[in-house]
Amino acid sequence: MSGSTYGRFFQITTWGESHGKALGVVVDGCPAGLPLCEEDIQLFLDRRKPGQNRFSTPRKESDSAQILSGVFEGKTTGCPISILVRNEAQRSADYSELASYYRPGHADFTFDAKYGFRDPRGGGRSSGRETIGRVAAGAIASKILNRLGIRLTCYTRSIGPVQINPDAFDAAQILQNPFYMPDAQAAQQAAQYLEECKKNGDSSGGTIECIAENMIAGLGDPVFEKLSANLAKAVCSIGAVKSFEIGDGSAVSTMLGSENNDAFAVGKNGVPVKKTNHSGGVLGGISDGSNLLLRAGIKPTPSVRRTQHTVTRDGKPIEVSIKGRHDPVIVPRAVVVVESMVAITLADALFANMSAKMDAVEQFYRRS
Amino acid sequence: MSGSTYGRFFQITTWGESHGKALGVVVDGCPAGLPLCEEDIQLFLDRRKPGQNRFSTPRKESDSAQILSGVFEGKTTGCPISILVRNEAQRSADYSELASYYRPGHADFTFDAKYGFRDPRGGGRSSGRETIGRVAAGAIASKILNRLGIRLTCYTRSIGPVQINPDAFDAAQILQNPFYMPDAQAAQQAAQYLEECKKNGDSSGGTIECIAENMIAGLGDPVFEKLSANLAKAVCSIGAVKSFEIGDGSAVSTMLGSENNDAFAVGKNGVPVKKTNHSGGVLGGISDGSNLLLRAGIKPTPSVRRTQHTVTRDGKPIEVSIKGRHDPVIVPRAVVVVESMVAITLADALFANMSAKMDAVEQFYRRS
Amino acid sequence: MSGSTYGRFFQITTWGESHGKALGVVVDGCPAGLPLCEEDIQLFLDRRKPGQNRFSTPRKESDSAQILSGVFEGKTTGCPISILVRNEAQRSADYSELASYYRPGHADFTFDAKYGFRDPRGGGRSSGRETIGRVAAGAIASKILNRLGIRLTCYTRSIGPVQINPDAFDAAQILQNPFYMPDAQAAQQAAQYLEECKKNGDSSGGTIECIAENMIAGLGDPVFEKLSANLAKAVCSIGAVKSFEIGDGSAVSTMLGSENNDAFAVGKNGVPVKKTNHSGGVLGGISDGSNLLLRAGIKPTPSVRRTQHTVTRDGKPIEVSIKGRHDPVIVPRAVVVVESMVAITLADALFANMSAKMDAVEQFYRRS
Amino acid sequence: MSGSTYGRFFQITTWGESHGKALGVVVDGCPAGLPLCEEDIQLFLDRRKPGQNRFSTPRKESDSAQILSGVFEGKTTGCPISILVRNEAQRSADYSELASYYRPGHADFTFDAKYGFRDPRGGGRSSGRETIGRVAAGAIASKILNRLGIRLTCYTRSIGPVQINPDAFDAAQILQNPFYMPDAQAAQQAAQYLEECKKNGDSSGGTIECIAENMIAGLGDPVFEKLSANLAKAVCSIGAVKSFEIGDGSAVSTMLGSENNDAFAVGKNGVPVKKTNHSGGVLGGISDGSNLLLRAGIKPTPSVRRTQHTVTRDGKPIEVSIKGRHDPVIVPRAVVVVESMVAITLADALFANMSAKMDAVEQFYRRS
Repeated sequence: MSGSTYGRFFQITTWGESHGKALGVVVDGCPAGLPLCEEDIQLFLDRRKPGQNRFSTPRKESDSAQILSGVFEGKTTGCPISILVRNEAQRSADYSELASYYRPGHADFTFDAKYGFRDPRGGGRSSGRETIGRVAAGAIASKILNRLGIRLTCYTRSIGPVQINPDAFDAAQILQNPFYMPDAQAAQQAAQYLEECKKNGDSSGGTIECIAENMIAGLGDPVFEKLSANLAKAVCSIGAVKSFEIGDGSAVSTMLGSENNDAFAVGKNGVPVKKTNHSGGVLGGISDGSNLLLRAGIKPTPSVRRTQHTVTRDGKPIEVSIKGRHDPVIVPRAVVVVESMVAITLADALFANMSAKMDAVEQFYRRS
Repeated sequence: MSGSTYGRFFQITTWGESHGKALGVVVDGCPAGLPLCEEDIQLFLDRRKPGQNRFSTPRKESDSAQILSGVFEGKTTGCPISILVRNEAQRSADYSELASYYRPGHADFTFDAKYGFRDPRGGGRSSGRETIGRVAAGAIASKILNRLGIRLTCYTRSIGPVQINPDAFDAAQILQNPFYMPDAQAAQQAAQYLEECKKNGDSSGGTIECIAENMIAGLGDPVFEKLSANLAKAVCSIGAVKSFEIGDGSAVSTMLGSENNDAFAVGKNGVPVKKTNHSGGVLGGISDGSNLLLRAGIKPTPSVRRTQHTVTRDGKPIEVSIKGRHDPVIVPRAVVVVESMVAITLADALFANMSAKMDAVEQFYRRS
Repeated sequence: MSGSTYGRFFQITTWGESHGKALGVVVDGCPAGLPLCEEDIQLFLDRRKPGQNRFSTPRKESDSAQILSGVFEGKTTGCPISILVRNEAQRSADYSELASYYRPGHADFTFDAKYGFRDPRGGGRSSGRETIGRVAAGAIASKILNRLGIRLTCYTRSIGPVQINPDAFDAAQILQNPFYMPDAQAAQQAAQYLEECKKNGDSSGGTIECIAENMIAGLGDPVFEKLSANLAKAVCSIGAVKSFEIGDGSAVSTMLGSENNDAFAVGKNGVPVKKTNHSGGVLGGISDGSNLLLRAGIKPTPSVRRTQHTVTRDGKPIEVSIKGRHDPVIVPRAVVVVESMVAITLADALFANMSAKMDAVEQFYRRS
Repeated sequence: MSGSTYGRFFQITTWGESHGKALGVVVDGCPAGLPLCEEDIQLFLDRRKPGQNRFSTPRKESDSAQILSGVFEGKTTGCPISILVRNEAQRSADYSELASYYRPGHADFTFDAKYGFRDPRGGGRSSGRETIGRVAAGAIASKILNRLGIRLTCYTRSIGPVQINPDAFDAAQILQNPFYMPDAQAAQQAAQYLEECKKNGDSSGGTIECIAENMIAGLGDPVFEKLSANLAKAVCSIGAVKSFEIGDGSAVSTMLGSENNDAFAVGKNGVPVKKTNHSGGVLGGISDGSNLLLRAGIKPTPSVRRTQHTVTRDGKPIEVSIKGRHDPVIVPRAVVVVESMVAITLADALFANMSAKMDAVEQFYRRS
């Protein structure tokens, strides 16, 4: 069955394996007339590129995006936008041994269970490189959001035990440190912690947070197409995500109703505004106009140098130590992936919402 | 836009408002030949029925299910199964005042923002009664899972600060206490805690856990149709859910790779089995054959007697105290809803997976 | 697999069997604020009702529609609209024998082949009564089209060899004769022809035409979601339809390009208009602003009194004569079904088109 | 809105413009383990290639297919297969003038109406080159069908007034003449007719027929996902198709029930077989095991040298004569496109059908 398409109206289809010829995405449903060039895409892709510092894999990929269709004279045409990124560092030889056993924490076993065999080169389709297509599409979705005034901010909230200090939050810091943390001091502590992990041949988990400001109220549909439900799917579809929270998240389980409810007050022009934002920007799954706030829990990189027990494809127990050079933490490079999936989900919700009211439809099509 | 349909192969469409004439569901894509009767549905619906104990709203609804189509001589025909539940306690008068202001924590404001107005009777489509359709469909999905040997266990893990003791876990207890807790002592403590909440005119949150045993490996598709991603959407589409975790969930963020990875060992017939289950039964988003384990964080009932600040539809600040009789906690009645959404998602994944391998397709259609 | 849902934005899910308890439809994605009452639905349903004249089956069904959800104080709420029609004439006994053999021209054999068994009462899900849900939904879609100024006219173009005279076309006649023909004289000839058919224990085919006037240009999406492709699917999903034509239809195969092309001229306000309409209102699958014009070929009622050869479920050859009382022609009752499917498809295309241009999206969401 | 994705389980997403950098397709949902190489694709693409004889445009494109993902060591992996074809003959200059006015019979006006502007180079997304993605995907679908024993035969039935003689039908002829006609004499007559058309600066329509042999009974789902309905959509989504017929097609409108019904007889192993095939292989929209038989009516090439009236983008009437060199008939090159769309639709129906019976699902997943 097909599982590489996401979105109903702003719809993306990604493809490609870690060590195949190329990876890419087809973005269908982008409105016509949006200015778009390869640099827009590249800016996003560069945020997930490996090899940029000593805490990410030294595999060097230029990861340069080519737009093959859907853009004419610098503007989208309304037709599908195909974006392609060639794989350059196809050193498949490094991975040949990996075909013979199941790496703990990886999808080796489940792909074999499902398909009978797998492309073992660098994780194939389950590699983190799969996210290139998401991020390229996220760059386009973000441009759409920006045109409507919605701003996304996404960052690392924690790496292992190191959390950012909410009081020291400084958005300007996010792009200033290799961890995309909005807190320079926490970033330094994270560096020390990861140094320790590397020394021990181990890896670290962490959390990512995303905020959408200047939101439009009314996005998301009741019941199954709740904005929060789609964001949960979008975020949990990213490889290493093991938890999703919106607003106060799992903390609500020990809160009282009187604490968790957000009181309404009268805002500008008489529009109701919430005094607090425990809800994280959705009520009944529909955006309430306040900031959207969500969080993802990311598991530690499964590739560790420390010895692990596992079994071979032909059913023999072995001990393995994953060599190669792997990021001791996935979190920083996943920040732009989370941001991209949120952007795509919001663009989709924006288009879905346009036919919610009959009088708005009539006004849209009014003819004399 | 439409948002009341869920699933690709096993597809459900729910409809109905809290105080309309009826609620229901159309289940399309159920295979032919499954024995099904109204009692099967009723058993599930009874688990979410109100008025069963002093911690749930005394509104009396028989909530009796009628199967209107798709079943012939006690077996499903492969055609859509329409199930209808009449609303009996339509005391709309109680709610008339609620139309004039926005209840904190409810979807009143967002429905108005989206649609321009709303059905104010008992929350309309955003009422918890919306879940009747999900649960009726869940009963059918569960029958399918049972035929394949998959067993679901779903229960309350915590109410406010009261958690079950994992060492005292007793599945037989789940249906023995009003909170669906697998721990009699925790249930008693929860009762005391909720008594206190009620006295204070307040409400409590909690957590629900669901386990699927005897799982089939290979369910879920790479990238966007990961089993975990669809479970996240399924669970987060339930009204009061604010967090979703699979396996070790948010705890992974402070774990080391060497802790979080599950080692493989050689199991029965040489099939690889995981020695631990930090992953919660999915690797790369595809089921790995071990137990599926997930958790939902549920917010406190937003309807509380304690005074709250809000605004009227015409933009005036007021103080409100939600009267009526409301559950001090949503969690126990949501247990069967979570179980239903998991069952539906698994049934869908089972059917989607049937065309994963070419040789299996050939074997399926082999003709002499 | 599920096959009872149609449409992406304006989405309908139908259910029910000929001799089950009821039939119905859930309409999801209808904008909020559309005035709607049961009479709106009934008006459409009455046009497909049996027993209205001597050329339709004397089975008496009041076919009265109940709206169970999605409407509040006479207006749609944006939530799913569930419509239910009870089956009254459930004389299943009449049909008991039919379970034992395969009626030629019916779906008896294919349902058995697909599902292993079937509901034999009156054709079950493959009965013409299945269209009740489509027509109820079509009534809603038509109200939406009317609000936007689009007018549908649907009628019988031919019954057997009897064709309407294009020069005598009189729309006012359509509801004045039992065949929904826009030509009184042709209707008389059709009556005579059908009288003959009945006498011979035989049945007749025919054609239905549908015109949409005051169309909006730009509906439909390139490649697979062409308006013409979706209309083809919509119309060919109706039981007895064996051909679909748009504009000049199959006649184009013998035309020259210079004949088939429609020249453009300058219309009102400088907007281009076509001087002719060979295209039937679509160019490249997208509506061109001129009238939409399509045609369906309907096969003769397969239930005939004349002796036919067939086989029993247990593989024995037999001769059968379908007794009961059946319409000698399906065409007239299918007119409103075609109209409904066209209306639903157009409503869907209208909503899909709203996000085609970025500046229109921006204007829609413009905020100060 | 997105419109470039087709299929539910075997799902294709095409992209690309006539004169952009490349065109392609992503095929998702292909089972793992199917042998596939670029030659398989090329064989199909070569059948739609231009410049192969004097009746097709002399534009030379090698149209060579590259598989970028989804295949490992000569077998599909179950992951999306991305296929890319570079555009070589991007002589955009030839087309620059075309941006200024609306060609009759083309989608120039409707694209402008929908999107506000368009890519005018060679028709952009509405060019016949768009079908490259369909045909590449069709090659894969055909391999799947072949593995299951289903054989497709697709050919030109008529060009203008020249029809094949059914009695002279010779499948071996199809690839022996430039028109893909199964009748050498008809092909000669067609050549003469087209010579005449060219001399007159005009073009011709025609019809294409497709037969699927050795069909499996039970494919297609009741109501909206009828096999016939999906075939209608698949075929009518091809640019120049103006009519679709299945079985006796539009001829049914003048047939009697006793003529149109296919009697059943007892076949091999007692399985019912139809003595005739007026139905074209579907009953109630579900395949009945006999040959599938369908027909498409193709309009004449809209680009003709003869003078036509039209208007400019800025609303002025002009006369135009489309120069360039264009095929005087689209039909022959569309044969493989029709075959491809039928193959894709059948593959999709095959996978959808696998969960139709509960006992088949149980047998599929049986575990000891």
